[in-house]
Amino acid sequence: MLTLDRTGALDTARALAPEFAARAADHDRDGSFPAADFADLRAAGLFGLMTPARLGGCGATFADYAAVATVLGAGAGATALVFNMHASVTGALAHLPDELVRELGDGFTAARDRMLADAAAGSFYAAAMSERGIGARLSLVRTGYHRVDGGYRIVGSKAFVSGAGHADAYLVAARDAASADEPKVSYFLVPAGDGVRVESTWDSLGMRATGSHDVHFDTVVPAAALLGGIEGLALLIAQVMPQWLVASYAAVYVGVARAAIDAAVEHLRERGLHALPAVRARVGRADAAVAAADLVVAEAARRVTDAPGTPETNRWVWRAKLLAGDTAAEVAGAMLEAAGTSATRRGHPLERIFRDARCGALQPATSDVCADWLGVAALGGDPDGDAPVPRW
Amino acid sequence: MLTLDRTGALDTARALAPEFAARAADHDRDGSFPAADFADLRAAGLFGLMTPARLGGCGATFADYAAVATVLGAGAGATALVFNMHASVTGALAHLPDELVRELGDGFTAARDRMLADAAAGSFYAAAMSERGIGARLSLVRTGYHRVDGGYRIVGSKAFVSGAGHADAYLVAARDAASADEPKVSYFLVPAGDGVRVESTWDSLGMRATGSHDVHFDTVVPAAALLGGIEGLALLIAQVMPQWLVASYAAVYVGVARAAIDAAVEHLRERGLHALPAVRARVGRADAAVAAADLVVAEAARRVTDAPGTPETNRWVWRAKLLAGDTAAEVAGAMLEAAGTSATRRGHPLERIFRDARCGALQPATSDVCADWLGVAALGGDPDGDAPVPRW
Amino acid sequence: MLTLDRTGALDTARALAPEFAARAADHDRDGSFPAADFADLRAAGLFGLMTPARLGGCGATFADYAAVATVLGAGAGATALVFNMHASVTGALAHLPDELVRELGDGFTAARDRMLADAAAGSFYAAAMSERGIGARLSLVRTGYHRVDGGYRIVGSKAFVSGAGHADAYLVAARDAASADEPKVSYFLVPAGDGVRVESTWDSLGMRATGSHDVHFDTVVPAAALLGGIEGLALLIAQVMPQWLVASYAAVYVGVARAAIDAAVEHLRERGLHALPAVRARVGRADAAVAAADLVVAEAARRVTDAPGTPETNRWVWRAKLLAGDTAAEVAGAMLEAAGTSATRRGHPLERIFRDARCGALQPATSDVCADWLGVAALGGDPDGDAPVPRW
Amino acid sequence: MLTLDRTGALDTARALAPEFAARAADHDRDGSFPAADFADLRAAGLFGLMTPARLGGCGATFADYAAVATVLGAGAGATALVFNMHASVTGALAHLPDELVRELGDGFTAARDRMLADAAAGSFYAAAMSERGIGARLSLVRTGYHRVDGGYRIVGSKAFVSGAGHADAYLVAARDAASADEPKVSYFLVPAGDGVRVESTWDSLGMRATGSHDVHFDTVVPAAALLGGIEGLALLIAQVMPQWLVASYAAVYVGVARAAIDAAVEHLRERGLHALPAVRARVGRADAAVAAADLVVAEAARRVTDAPGTPETNRWVWRAKLLAGDTAAEVAGAMLEAAGTSATRRGHPLERIFRDARCGALQPATSDVCADWLGVAALGGDPDGDAPVPRW
Repeated sequence: MLTLDRTGALDTARALAPEFAARAADHDRDGSFPAADFADLRAAGLFGLMTPARLGGCGATFADYAAVATVLGAGAGATALVFNMHASVTGALAHLPDELVRELGDGFTAARDRMLADAAAGSFYAAAMSERGIGARLSLVRTGYHRVDGGYRIVGSKAFVSGAGHADAYLVAARDAASADEPKVSYFLVPAGDGVRVESTWDSLGMRATGSHDVHFDTVVPAAALLGGIEGLALLIAQVMPQWLVASYAAVYVGVARAAIDAAVEHLRERGLHALPAVRARVGRADAAVAAADLVVAEAARRVTDAPGTPETNRWVWRAKLLAGDTAAEVAGAMLEAAGTSATRRGHPLERIFRDARCGALQPATSDVCADWLGVAALGGDPDGDAPVPRW
Repeated sequence: MLTLDRTGALDTARALAPEFAARAADHDRDGSFPAADFADLRAAGLFGLMTPARLGGCGATFADYAAVATVLGAGAGATALVFNMHASVTGALAHLPDELVRELGDGFTAARDRMLADAAAGSFYAAAMSERGIGARLSLVRTGYHRVDGGYRIVGSKAFVSGAGHADAYLVAARDAASADEPKVSYFLVPAGDGVRVESTWDSLGMRATGSHDVHFDTVVPAAALLGGIEGLALLIAQVMPQWLVASYAAVYVGVARAAIDAAVEHLRERGLHALPAVRARVGRADAAVAAADLVVAEAARRVTDAPGTPETNRWVWRAKLLAGDTAAEVAGAMLEAAGTSATRRGHPLERIFRDARCGALQPATSDVCADWLGVAALGGDPDGDAPVPRW
Repeated sequence: MLTLDRTGALDTARALAPEFAARAADHDRDGSFPAADFADLRAAGLFGLMTPARLGGCGATFADYAAVATVLGAGAGATALVFNMHASVTGALAHLPDELVRELGDGFTAARDRMLADAAAGSFYAAAMSERGIGARLSLVRTGYHRVDGGYRIVGSKAFVSGAGHADAYLVAARDAASADEPKVSYFLVPAGDGVRVESTWDSLGMRATGSHDVHFDTVVPAAALLGGIEGLALLIAQVMPQWLVASYAAVYVGVARAAIDAAVEHLRERGLHALPAVRARVGRADAAVAAADLVVAEAARRVTDAPGTPETNRWVWRAKLLAGDTAAEVAGAMLEAAGTSATRRGHPLERIFRDARCGALQPATSDVCADWLGVAALGGDPDGDAPVPRW
Repeated sequence: MLTLDRTGALDTARALAPEFAARAADHDRDGSFPAADFADLRAAGLFGLMTPARLGGCGATFADYAAVATVLGAGAGATALVFNMHASVTGALAHLPDELVRELGDGFTAARDRMLADAAAGSFYAAAMSERGIGARLSLVRTGYHRVDGGYRIVGSKAFVSGAGHADAYLVAARDAASADEPKVSYFLVPAGDGVRVESTWDSLGMRATGSHDVHFDTVVPAAALLGGIEGLALLIAQVMPQWLVASYAAVYVGVARAAIDAAVEHLRERGLHALPAVRARVGRADAAVAAADLVVAEAARRVTDAPGTPETNRWVWRAKLLAGDTAAEVAGAMLEAAGTSATRRGHPLERIFRDARCGALQPATSDVCADWLGVAALGGDPDGDAPVPRW
């Protein structure tokens, strides 16, 4: 296990991306988890990307992370999306406002730091938040917990758990089964093993290697598994994590869009088709679109780092998500059209990238939702209050 | 086996399409040939769609065919594309200009009529034209034939043979191996069986059930296998077939586009998402786009029927191909975006249709090539002479 | 004054269009009314286009009219839009359902027929429906009438009266000033002259020559001016006229779009720029788009003729309006881009057409509204009941 | 006259922009030069924006300038485009590579500095480069000069001279009339006055207030008018100026695009239409597109400042031009559609902005040319060598 600084992390990502790209076709075909990619990420020390340096990690900012995610996404979109969940869990914890951390007390800080140090030491976390029928809306979570001797029993089922079956532990959102009226939703760090059963349900158009299966929990965990030793933290942390998820998805899809251009250019040059005017026009417009989306994601990441949670930062996050998702889909489609029928063969990088790229605009917040929020904000309204579309 | 008239053929296609749709997911998943669909088409008498009524067929015009192809394409795009090859072979022969048929003589007419009558009686033909590296340009064909006792020996390899392994006979384009200087390219109707070996090479993004594999020929056929008993006919017939292929591809993709809307509407209503403004806007614009593409394809088909081969008819064929291919891809992408992530699961109709729909603009003549030809023609040029892009 | 049949009307429109085109630049520059165009239309007998043959007119169907409107629109969009109002007034009256006409009685029929015969004899009608702040919603009309000796006094102000100051008479919608509770809205045919004052208010981006000024009425009309001698007819007739307006606007904008291509082609050939690949691609795609919009408008017109007012006919009308408006704007923009800076000079046909073409999607029903209605209908809803956007 | 530093210049531009916006409608209507805007720019010290601080100017970098141009463009596009010519002349001279300046000698430096100091003191320069039929290709310039007693006589005609009739002096490109074989093209700073005749030829769709008329020169200038006292400098300086022109045009059009959103938002809020879903979607997507174009222009400007003339910098310049021009046109069209017919009235800001915004993509290098160059570069080619489209 290496110890990386922020610059080293980006360099490492650049070095790993071609390896990931080389393995991506197999994992896409089989819908199998890119275990070797994650072994590489662990060995390279990148599980500690968001862990502060004082705890053995790279101490990356959100902007650092976005750069890493773009690079990984250009290598293998699915790997980057799974890594994104680990980074979101660790990054959200690492970047909690100082004031809030102080308020939560020393017990919380110690638990949080241990979890981040473990990540730097090679622990790989998955997020088990969403449930069927409620999406990611934590206030509606049905997975329950109740107190038992020496800890808690957690019972329930989660969906879209990227990295299911491969993570060392799952951050599970569960509600206090005893509290009937007001929902108290807490986080537990549940280790893989007995009582954690993966049901293979993920079989998708694109991003097939994320292994975002259902996971069924019926397990007893020690008291220390309760995140920070404090019940009811889930919504607090969730308010930080969304911008993480939205903006970091965006970074991945900019990488995917760039990979589409690279694959098309290689294909077109190999076949001597690079001088056709229609090909040049398509590649040229794609180049400009990806360059623009890249800058918008970087700008959003910079603002999340510098001024997290402000209305203006949120607007940049939505812009980033909207443009990255739409650009990826448009660029991948155009590159496939430039490359021609021979690039539609399964196993050809563009064939996979085209499917991967279509998924970005559909992941929450969808492009249509982002456009709506941006419109409300630009028209002087309050997207939190005026938008009729439910949030997360 | 039924005998259908032209109206009956369309009604039959409408009755079969839902069956085909129900089987499409399996064939898409496995890349397997929709044998049951073709058993249904045979039993219903649709192999004789283009065979004149005097020979036991439906006597369909090109316009009739385009309507049938749209309906079948809305059921299962891949099935419609394979059927399209059979219809192109039989339709091109059935619709040869009277004058040309007279010129070719009674022997040709008899052979042609036998082939069409066989189709009406249930024979299923595949076209074995393209070869790797030369596309569909017949003048460059490398598959060769030479005279042997009692017939011809044919040796060579063909690519993109839709229906490979399932057709009763293949219409093979081959060159006279003895004639060194000027290429003499002839058609042979080669029965399936010994000397015809299918190599599974088709594994594509979309239209996975067409079974468009490579086929290797090393076989001796009787003299009667030479189409019409006349050597060198290939280019003559090919000049008729392209408008068949281009315009009939177009009809299939209009059907695919319509299927995308239907699948999205069903999905959105089931989930109660049909009142969202962004959904309504997407579906509304898709509805208009598909209605327009449908009319353009029907107009092109009408003109191919009434005035085949004129410059104005050709422009309508290119318009049809351009708009059908582009509309299918755009509409399927928009419908997936309207339907949301749950429709990207493999097995969901929209997931397959999205992949199928992307293929239309890439099939020759590609959208970019059609746009170029249309532009040259509109600007007063001669697309045959002025366009730098090679034709078929 | 000539008497034309339906075919003759279309031929005549074709002969006049180049004259109108030659005058269009001046009227656009000055915002002046194309009086010479209307003198030509009158002399050619086209004011009687919608008047039945038995009354001396051409007896055109709606489909005939759409063809004429497209041709006139390709000549001069503004002239075609003004003529459209005259044709809508006369066409709506001429095509009232037989059953309704019988119900309204002989007095109505006689009055209606006189009005149509006058049109055939050269009378030019304008529609004075809209008012500031209420748009075209008749139930909110504020212009009032009350009975006076020998007739009615009409007082109020109308907006967007195309042809203001040049029509022989205005069809004015007014409410019974005496009936306080339930609005009774009637039509009056008010002759130009005293008590009819035009206020020059029309000064628009495009379609500058329509002279769609405000008109202020304070005038006494004889009893015979009440349309058909029956009060409260306005809503009845308005329900027929909207499809007239929407579908016939659409026909005009298809003509405008075609004029954009023609102007660009002429410009590009003159300057020897027609061989540039980017130019060819733009012109080719524009050609296909306009061909499609043209077919959709013709289909809508055919259905309005054959089955007016059915839900399916209405969908075609919305499709026609949506595609014609959007296509005109997109094509004109693309043609300007193909032609280059020199075509942006005032006086160049493309400069005017670009501005004219932008107006179609904005005229009611706007493209966004049409898309919404089409979406609601495609999703199985009832656009009349479910759409939150107010109608006309 | 004030002395501004770089930050002060941007603040000043922000303060002036609303004034310019308030005057823009009149100048657009009349095609008149915004003389008051330029009086304000002079009084505020902004004519010295690019003049180094040591010579009394603001010492702005290219990136500083791009920020100013965006702000001015959001106020009044035409004013910003004219100011852009002055800034290009002074900026190109101010930013000549040190090495080149040393090579050209002290005489050149003194003359150059005087010209820049004069700008800081309030001199306003126009560029008289283009000629009819040759565009901006200096090697083909027909305007000639020959030596006379005490100086040079310059005879010829220039086109598209923004600010014609209002500049204090014109930077004129002319060829040595005596040198027949190899063209020697020099720059002269020709003062306004006798022998400089403006012919009103500018009457354009948009950017009507730039006064980009033809200027006819037949005048004798003193020897000191030869720029730097050195003949044949034109191509040297032109190689620097194009990136100036292209990237700074881009900045102006980002400002225009932003003005379109602002005008639409104000209009929609005034009319209470800001809650319509279609309006919100249009405004939201426009917001994201303009934010992206803004970042790309800023990035291009930063790179022109830091690494002028490198292939990577040039790619950013083309990206900026492509995206700014296309975004302005698309956003302005969409905002007009959101705002509705009432915003198409002449005098409404959106009506003017829509026309202004259409011009960006057509100014050289056009969007199609930029896309082609970007495509060639992305495909590994050399845009200078491989592109068949002539450069400047």
